[in-house]
Amino acid sequence: VDVAGRPCRTIWLDEDDAAIVRIIDQRLLPHRFVVVPLRTWQEGAEAIRSMQVRGAPLVGATAAWSLYLAAREPRDVVADAAAGLQATRPTAVNLRWAIERSLADMASAGSARERCARARATAEAICEEDVAVNRKLGEHGVALIERAAAKSGVANVLTHCNAGWLATVDVGTATAPTYLARQRGIPVHVWVDETRPRNQGAALTAWELGQAGVAHTVIVDNAGGHLMQRGRVDLCIVGTDRTARSGDVANKIGTYLKALAAHDNGVPFYVAVPSSSIDWRIRDGLREIPIEERGGDEVSGIEGMHGDSVTRVQLTPSDSPAHNPAFDVTPARLVTGLITERGLCSASEKGLLELFPEHARDAG
Amino acid sequence: VDVAGRPCRTIWLDEDDAAIVRIIDQRLLPHRFVVVPLRTWQEGAEAIRSMQVRGAPLVGATAAWSLYLAAREPRDVVADAAAGLQATRPTAVNLRWAIERSLADMASAGSARERCARARATAEAICEEDVAVNRKLGEHGVALIERAAAKSGVANVLTHCNAGWLATVDVGTATAPTYLARQRGIPVHVWVDETRPRNQGAALTAWELGQAGVAHTVIVDNAGGHLMQRGRVDLCIVGTDRTARSGDVANKIGTYLKALAAHDNGVPFYVAVPSSSIDWRIRDGLREIPIEERGGDEVSGIEGMHGDSVTRVQLTPSDSPAHNPAFDVTPARLVTGLITERGLCSASEKGLLELFPEHARDAG
Repeated sequence: VDVAGRPCRTIWLDEDDAAIVRIIDQRLLPHRFVVVPLRTWQEGAEAIRSMQVRGAPLVGATAAWSLYLAAREPRDVVADAAAGLQATRPTAVNLRWAIERSLADMASAGSARERCARARATAEAICEEDVAVNRKLGEHGVALIERAAAKSGVANVLTHCNAGWLATVDVGTATAPTYLARQRGIPVHVWVDETRPRNQGAALTAWELGQAGVAHTVIVDNAGGHLMQRGRVDLCIVGTDRTARSGDVANKIGTYLKALAAHDNGVPFYVAVPSSSIDWRIRDGLREIPIEERGGDEVSGIEGMHGDSVTRVQLTPSDSPAHNPAFDVTPARLVTGLITERGLCSASEKGLLELFPEHARDAG
Repeated sequence: VDVAGRPCRTIWLDEDDAAIVRIIDQRLLPHRFVVVPLRTWQEGAEAIRSMQVRGAPLVGATAAWSLYLAAREPRDVVADAAAGLQATRPTAVNLRWAIERSLADMASAGSARERCARARATAEAICEEDVAVNRKLGEHGVALIERAAAKSGVANVLTHCNAGWLATVDVGTATAPTYLARQRGIPVHVWVDETRPRNQGAALTAWELGQAGVAHTVIVDNAGGHLMQRGRVDLCIVGTDRTARSGDVANKIGTYLKALAAHDNGVPFYVAVPSSSIDWRIRDGLREIPIEERGGDEVSGIEGMHGDSVTRVQLTPSDSPAHNPAFDVTPARLVTGLITERGLCSASEKGLLELFPEHARDAG
C-alpha cells in the first residue's frame, strides 16, 4: 500500500543495516506516522506486547524477524527468544506458526552463521508469502464485491477492526478484495466499525482506506446491526486471529455480534483466512481458543488527538472497574464462507479440508 | 437516588423561585456535577436538544416543565413552545406524550393564570407519576434478579446505555429492579455497556450505580456477546425510547445486537417499559419509529477528563466521514418480556393489551 504516494510495507529489514528491523508504531496512527527500529528480539517482543504491531499475520512476521535478531546474537538465545515471543499474546495462532516454522528451519543448520542466514530467509519468506497469500485472498474475494456492486450499484462492505495492510505485511486480508475492487473500478464503499476499545477500525482501517482512496464511513460498533436491518450492508468481510479446523473464527471482540446481525438479516458474512491463521489442531473454537484479557485502562480511557498532541482522556468514573476481553469466537454456523488463498469454502472442517487436504490428520 | 449522600432528582422546580426549573447538566458527568437553571421554554428545548437532559422519561418531564415556563410568559407562546419542543428529538415518544397531556390539561383553563397553574400541576404530576411508575417497575422486575441470584449466587445483569435515575426523574426504569435488589440485600452485579458514541453507560450508568453502591463493571459495547457465550450474563434489562404496541422496542443504538446475542445464548432479555414510552398508535417498530441521526462528530471524537478539564480528542482521520444513527429497533421476537408498571408481559400486542386494555382501539 502507498503511504503519501510511496509504497510501504509494515515491517522490513533496513536496507543499509542488517542489524535493524523497522516497523511502524501503529499506536500513533492515524495521528502520526512514525517508523521505529527493532534491534533485539526483546524489542520485537515488546513491539508485539505493546501493540506497536498487531494483526495476526504481522505479529507472526514480527516474531520471525525477532528470531532473526536473536540468531544474530553471539550467545545462543534462540530458545529463550522463542519462549519469550510465544508468551507475548495468546490468541493469534500465527505467532506459534511463525515461531515453529523459523525454529524448524534453523534446527539443522551447521553453524551459527548458517542458522542466522536461515532465520533471515525464513522471515523474508514469511513476509513474501504473506503478501502473495493476501493477493490471492483479494482475487478470490473480489467476485463477492463485484456481485454486490452489480446488484446494489455500490457494494457496501462492513468490516470490523483492522484486517488491512497494517495487520499484515502488505495488502491486508479482509481489505484485499476491497483494494482489488478499487483497482478494477468496481464501486465499493466500506462501513468501518470503530472497534473499541483500541479503535483499530477508526484509527487504522479508516486511515489506510483513506490513503488508498477507498470510499468509507466510520460507524460506532453499535451501529452495524441497524444498518443491516435497513439494507445498507451488502456483505461483511472480517479477518481472523485464529480459525479452528471446524470453521469457528476467533477475531477481535465484537465480531460475533456482527455475525449474529448478518445472519439475522440475510447479509453474507465472510472471513478472510490466510492458512497461517488456521489452527488445524483444534475443532471447538469456543472451548479451545484462549481469549486474551487486556487491562481495564483500555476501556476506562482512550487516546486521541487534542491540539497537536496525542492525549489520553478518562471516560469512566475513577472508581468503576472495567473488564476487557480482546477477542471473541464466532461459531462456524454464523459464517457464510471463508476466503482462503486457495479459494472460497464453507466454514467447516469438510470445506477447509477440500482446499487443504494435507491437514486431514493434524487434529489433536 | 442519593448524590454524595443526599437525595436528588434529575429535574425540579426551584424551592424559592417558581420561575426557575433546575436540571443536572448530564453532559459533564461523571466528571462534574453541575446543576443549571431553565428560565424559558427555549432553554428547556435547548437542554433537550443539546442533551443536557436525555432519556425518554426525563425528556418528557423536561418538556412538561418547559411548557409550564411557556405558560408563565405574558404573551401566548404555548403553541409555539409545544411545536418547538416536539421538534427537538424525534425518537422518544415520551416527548409527544408529555406535550399532548400538558396541552390537554391547559385547554379548558379559564384564564392565563389558571393555565399556568395547570401546566405546573401537570409537570408535577408527570414527575411524581414517573417516580411511582419506576418504583412499580422495580417491584415487578426484582423477582427476575432474585431468581437469577438464587441460581448463580450473584445475579449478573447486563444493561445498555443509561435507563437509570438520570434518564428519568428518579429511580430509573431498567435500573429500578437493580436498586430494589440492592435494598433487599440480593447479590447483584451489573455489566455496564459503554454505549458509544455518547458513552451514557460508561459515563452515567457507571456513575449512578457507583453513587448507589451497586457492584458494576464497565465493558465496551463489543464485549457483551462474548460474556453471554461464557455464561457470565444471567439477564439483560434495558430501557426504551419508544415501544410499538407489537412489542418492537426502539432503544439506544446497539440494543438490537445485545438482544441477538441474548437470544443466541438463551439469556433472558427484558425491557423496562413505563407505559408513557409505549406508542399505541403504531405496530411495526422497524418501519414506523423515526430514528434520529446525529452529527458524525460524536463518532469522530469523544470527550473525557484530561487533568482537570473535560477535553475532546479526535479519534478518526480528519478526512474520514462518519455516520451516526442514535437508536435501533429490536424486534419483539428477540424480547423475552416487558416490565411495565402493571406487571410483566410478553413483547406482543396481546401481552400489552392484557395489561393495558384501555388502549385496544388506539392503533392508527
